[in-house]
Amino acid sequence: MIDIDKLLAGDRRMAARAISMIEDEDEDRQKLLSELFPHTGNVLTIGITGSPGAGKSSLTDALTRQARQQDLKVGIIAVDPTSPISGGALLGDRIRMQEHALDRGVFIRSMGTRGCLGGLARATKDAVKVLDAFGCNIIFIETVGVGQSELDIMHYADTTLVVLTPGAGDHVQTIKAGIMEIANIFVINKADLGNTGKMITDIEQMLDMSSHHNGWRPPIIKTVTTEEKGLPELWNMILTHKEYNETSGAQKENERKRVQQEVQELLEEKIQNQLKLKLSSNGNMWKLVESIVERNMDPYAAANKLLKEFLSI
Amino acid sequence: MIDIDKLLAGDRRMAARAISMIEDEDEDRQKLLSELFPHTGNVLTIGITGSPGAGKSSLTDALTRQARQQDLKVGIIAVDPTSPISGGALLGDRIRMQEHALDRGVFIRSMGTRGCLGGLARATKDAVKVLDAFGCNIIFIETVGVGQSELDIMHYADTTLVVLTPGAGDHVQTIKAGIMEIANIFVINKADLGNTGKMITDIEQMLDMSSHHNGWRPPIIKTVTTEEKGLPELWNMILTHKEYNETSGAQKENERKRVQQEVQELLEEKIQNQLKLKLSSNGNMWKLVESIVERNMDPYAAANKLLKEFLSI
Repeated sequence: MIDIDKLLAGDRRMAARAISMIEDEDEDRQKLLSELFPHTGNVLTIGITGSPGAGKSSLTDALTRQARQQDLKVGIIAVDPTSPISGGALLGDRIRMQEHALDRGVFIRSMGTRGCLGGLARATKDAVKVLDAFGCNIIFIETVGVGQSELDIMHYADTTLVVLTPGAGDHVQTIKAGIMEIANIFVINKADLGNTGKMITDIEQMLDMSSHHNGWRPPIIKTVTTEEKGLPELWNMILTHKEYNETSGAQKENERKRVQQEVQELLEEKIQNQLKLKLSSNGNMWKLVESIVERNMDPYAAANKLLKEFLSI
Repeated sequence: MIDIDKLLAGDRRMAARAISMIEDEDEDRQKLLSELFPHTGNVLTIGITGSPGAGKSSLTDALTRQARQQDLKVGIIAVDPTSPISGGALLGDRIRMQEHALDRGVFIRSMGTRGCLGGLARATKDAVKVLDAFGCNIIFIETVGVGQSELDIMHYADTTLVVLTPGAGDHVQTIKAGIMEIANIFVINKADLGNTGKMITDIEQMLDMSSHHNGWRPPIIKTVTTEEKGLPELWNMILTHKEYNETSGAQKENERKRVQQEVQELLEEKIQNQLKLKLSSNGNMWKLVESIVERNMDPYAAANKLLKEFLSI
């Protein structure tokens, strides 16, 4: 069982268990999240996405160092839909994160796919809430790929970094439109590895043609994580975006959207569950199927009949 | 408007219009389908899938000739989720199908994506019903790709042909498991183009390891459509599978499953629509969102509250 007071006081084991409950789709997870919810809303979430090999992990590492210098408590959620195993850090993560593993101010968690991909986005958002209540000041959500579930997750973040790298075939034109649109800050990582001029021009041209939500035009920051270059600049830009969000009202607006989205998703999920229950316990269904097979009824009339029954439970 | 009597009497224009109504998600389409439904249930549906370049179109052509020799009325539905345009045959289809275009006994239709992919599977199944009521004896459903919506469609067919070709890198091991499992008959097309022995051995080995639903072990037929080779054999095998389905009871069982699936899908769709309506008209939603943002309520409690309201409409 989860001792909520301990979790709120910063007990790491309780936080880990709570996230496992979420991943396992434990029946009691909603009750838990309900109780944690009043203690959330204080965290800054940073989404980090981009093509494989762009150095997202090293960047997360470097940003974690920046945050730790400010004595902020950091959560790192690595989302990997390609990994069937979850609930533990990937081997690569474990090695990579050795530096932070002993730091009690950093909580690292990998989330893989259990069940459907939609479930991964849902579970990640709930894990954010756990780490928020646990006392993290900042959470980095790093995605391995750029599929639909990752896009959903990035939409959930306060600030989204899209990480590109020159020379790795990262041509701006070929990057999925959906990815470019979610960027609040562009990071050109491994900026020492190629000509960044063309890439910057391409991004700027694309930005010239886009309308900028709330008037924030995504800046472009060059970094070389291996040499710690550009990291203070990137960190400051994250704080600038945070401030911008707060003063422009975008923060409140985003939160309202997130909440509405979340309530709707939860409601749809509950209705689906009720529906399954109803249909599996409904001996009537078999009679209906027989009448349809015999052409005494049609599927559309049958669905209407069931709809009426269902909505008057 | 659709004149149903004319459609049932075999008026091609009415059939074409009815399918357009379905594709356009016209409000009256369910009423139309309701009226057509009692006149359905007489058609044999043949799904034809496989990797691009396997010669599915030529095979459909050749099978159409076989069916026409028996004086059967043929429907051909070409499903192409990659095509944003629909409601008309693709250019390639038009050229390819010139032979049949003047044949009043063949009805050809391409279906592309309007709206979501789930909608394409739904629209294709409804188009099958139209062509069934229209008087087709056999409908070939040919898919361009092998994505989820195509898989759904193939599950709907009475007999599914999986078309492979030697020498085109069609290694049995690399073909998606889902595709291999839906095959009722394997067709090795362009059998003159490479060594079919290895491919046959691979399929047989795979079949040795699989359990065969209802005791039907999918046979392997070699064809060369350009030389009309193997076509009578393939046609006879389709008829054998039809007979098998009828005598083994699989036909009835499949129909029950299809009907149940369909009623469930329709019901889910209706509920989603009702939900959208409810939420958009619910001023309450905004109040709930505000309470959640202010941490006076949590999303889980809000969803429960809405669920109760929704189910007692």
